[in-house]
Amino acid sequence: MRAAPSPEEIRTRNLAVLLRHVHHDGAVSRATLAERMGLNRSTILALTTDLAAAGLVSEEPPGQTGRAGRPSLVVRPLAHRVYVVALDVGADRLAAARVGLGGSVLDRTETERPRGAFDPDEVITALVAMARAMIDKATPGAVCVGVGVAFCGMVRAQDGVVRYGPNIGWVDVPFGATMTGALDLGLRVVVGNNADLGALAERERGVGEGVANLIYLHGDIGIGGGIIANGELLGGASGYGGEIGHMIVNPGGRQCACGSRGCLEAEAGELGLIAATGRSDPTGRVSVGEIVEAASRGDVAARDALHRAGEWLGYGVANLVNIFNPSMVVFGGVLREIYLASAAQVRSRVAVHSLRAAREQVRLRTSALGDDAPLIGAAELAFTDVLTDPLQVLTGAARD
Amino acid sequence: MRAAPSPEEIRTRNLAVLLRHVHHDGAVSRATLAERMGLNRSTILALTTDLAAAGLVSEEPPGQTGRAGRPSLVVRPLAHRVYVVALDVGADRLAAARVGLGGSVLDRTETERPRGAFDPDEVITALVAMARAMIDKATPGAVCVGVGVAFCGMVRAQDGVVRYGPNIGWVDVPFGATMTGALDLGLRVVVGNNADLGALAERERGVGEGVANLIYLHGDIGIGGGIIANGELLGGASGYGGEIGHMIVNPGGRQCACGSRGCLEAEAGELGLIAATGRSDPTGRVSVGEIVEAASRGDVAARDALHRAGEWLGYGVANLVNIFNPSMVVFGGVLREIYLASAAQVRSRVAVHSLRAAREQVRLRTSALGDDAPLIGAAELAFTDVLTDPLQVLTGAARD
Repeated sequence: MRAAPSPEEIRTRNLAVLLRHVHHDGAVSRATLAERMGLNRSTILALTTDLAAAGLVSEEPPGQTGRAGRPSLVVRPLAHRVYVVALDVGADRLAAARVGLGGSVLDRTETERPRGAFDPDEVITALVAMARAMIDKATPGAVCVGVGVAFCGMVRAQDGVVRYGPNIGWVDVPFGATMTGALDLGLRVVVGNNADLGALAERERGVGEGVANLIYLHGDIGIGGGIIANGELLGGASGYGGEIGHMIVNPGGRQCACGSRGCLEAEAGELGLIAATGRSDPTGRVSVGEIVEAASRGDVAARDALHRAGEWLGYGVANLVNIFNPSMVVFGGVLREIYLASAAQVRSRVAVHSLRAAREQVRLRTSALGDDAPLIGAAELAFTDVLTDPLQVLTGAARD
Repeated sequence: MRAAPSPEEIRTRNLAVLLRHVHHDGAVSRATLAERMGLNRSTILALTTDLAAAGLVSEEPPGQTGRAGRPSLVVRPLAHRVYVVALDVGADRLAAARVGLGGSVLDRTETERPRGAFDPDEVITALVAMARAMIDKATPGAVCVGVGVAFCGMVRAQDGVVRYGPNIGWVDVPFGATMTGALDLGLRVVVGNNADLGALAERERGVGEGVANLIYLHGDIGIGGGIIANGELLGGASGYGGEIGHMIVNPGGRQCACGSRGCLEAEAGELGLIAATGRSDPTGRVSVGEIVEAASRGDVAARDALHRAGEWLGYGVANLVNIFNPSMVVFGGVLREIYLASAAQVRSRVAVHSLRAAREQVRLRTSALGDDAPLIGAAELAFTDVLTDPLQVLTGAARD
């Protein structure tokens, strides 16, 4: 337990809090900032002046409001001047985006790839090329203040080592450090689990905006989980928390890639669904789409397979409701389609197997950000440093 | 997002942080406090002087240290002057304790009762009598600064309403408010779930001291769960988080009191264990003790029942390891005996069904505080206010 902050720490924190409001809302009047932060207008003026001098925000008169009196200046993020690079390593694609302060996506690209093992060196070479091309297209004078990567596997929080990425065959790959060296921007590349970052993205800019207790389930080949509890991402002791896909819902059930049986992802995920229809072409999202479409046309095998997946998904969600008492559960990636086609089964299981008090306020929703939730979350991760100590980061970045 | 704290808020926070160190450690030198809090000695002196003037701490020379130089004064909590009352409503007992600042148990009492429905008015009358008797025995001039209650069921965080207490037959009982009125001490009686409070107690003063990611499983008739993630108790949206006993580990399995089937508590808890031996005398802890003893004597039915319970407990713990990546899982209440007699089954299931990275740092432990973990946790809950704003609370309490 440390003492309360010093005056310098307080100034830094106030700058950070103000910049977070501007980053989140896009444009906020000084009057609103003063009210939200509980500070007087002259303190707000001093803070916005510092941020403007550092090139992080601009101040301008608001549009015509029709009200009398002198209008309060509006503070806006300088999205084209201050940006991050976000990258996403999925089971079947690599994606990249340049995202400006304030959250606007300035540029975006992706490349698909066949599923299966994927050599780390190849991935890093491809990501570096994508990132460099984006940085080269940035406005002259613009500053990159962070690089964040979403990865489809277990990532050690402290150093970005990928401990386990079963769907692309990685074990103990020093991904963060190698990316940092290869990009050579003078910035540490931060890496997070894709579902954790999807949860952050849906909470910051998606269907769960402002929800303090939210669970995000991301389906691609497997099912990843991101858990926000008391407003904070649940990382656990080393950052591996949230492996909801490997909660066993059906002991002795279908073989899972992790070596266990009956895991949620083996029963309710894409592979389980495709196998249950008897198809021999497990080609991912396309197959899921075909199964959903067949079911909607009345195909019995497709409908039964979806209902079966929905039953197991319902068991899993019921357990999560009892364990977490969340306000919202969000289905993302390919789980959006699976959930939408089996919502009756999911909801019925949740109603039967979760405790009334724990479930009465929970909302089940599909992702608002679609497949880009992890990518948007990677951008938010990359903004962490500048939103914690705005002036320090910008000074450092400009120098490099 | 609020601004950084004002100077008055900083002083209050520093007083609170200092008092928490003293409360936790029992006796701390001013020099240690200065070092831990990152403050200079004159600031520490000002803070301890305020706390001493309020009657919360005393300062005295340390014992002979053998070192040269002027020794740093030691700050101690005034346990006999400042105390809380802690109460525990279990399935088969009521317990009460008077606990001094610093955590010493000054007085303790309990009454057993047969299991089954238990009228709220009777419980409240009995608890009030126990609390009053304890307060009457306190040192003249001593001040009660809080009352905390541990309850074996789901408690709404905001107002202490018991939403569901299946083992004693309560639904939607305004327990906190009724206790506050009945005790009439001018203090709000705060109520928490017994396993949540057990988790807090083991983290503050038990086997999990200082562990930031800890899961506590409390067995009595059912299995309750208390989860500490990132150092904070996981309450969820309304305080009902942690109902681990109702995670379904065996779909379609044994009937549970909650209406579902195959819940962890139905399979691995006391009732499941007793039923699996074919006994018709489900009398709780005594029966569990007899089964464990019979197994140790070589009784096959008893051993098989324990192994079966251990298998399901192992599935449950494996799921928790994957979901939370905890540093420690603690077995408390009657689960201590069940775990100790089936540890091989539990550990084997965890090894097979949890992901290596998530489990490699987890320790499985039995409770250090025994059946009193929830009671000790209720005391810590009752100390919350004085440890948040020491002078305010003491002034208020003394006036009433």
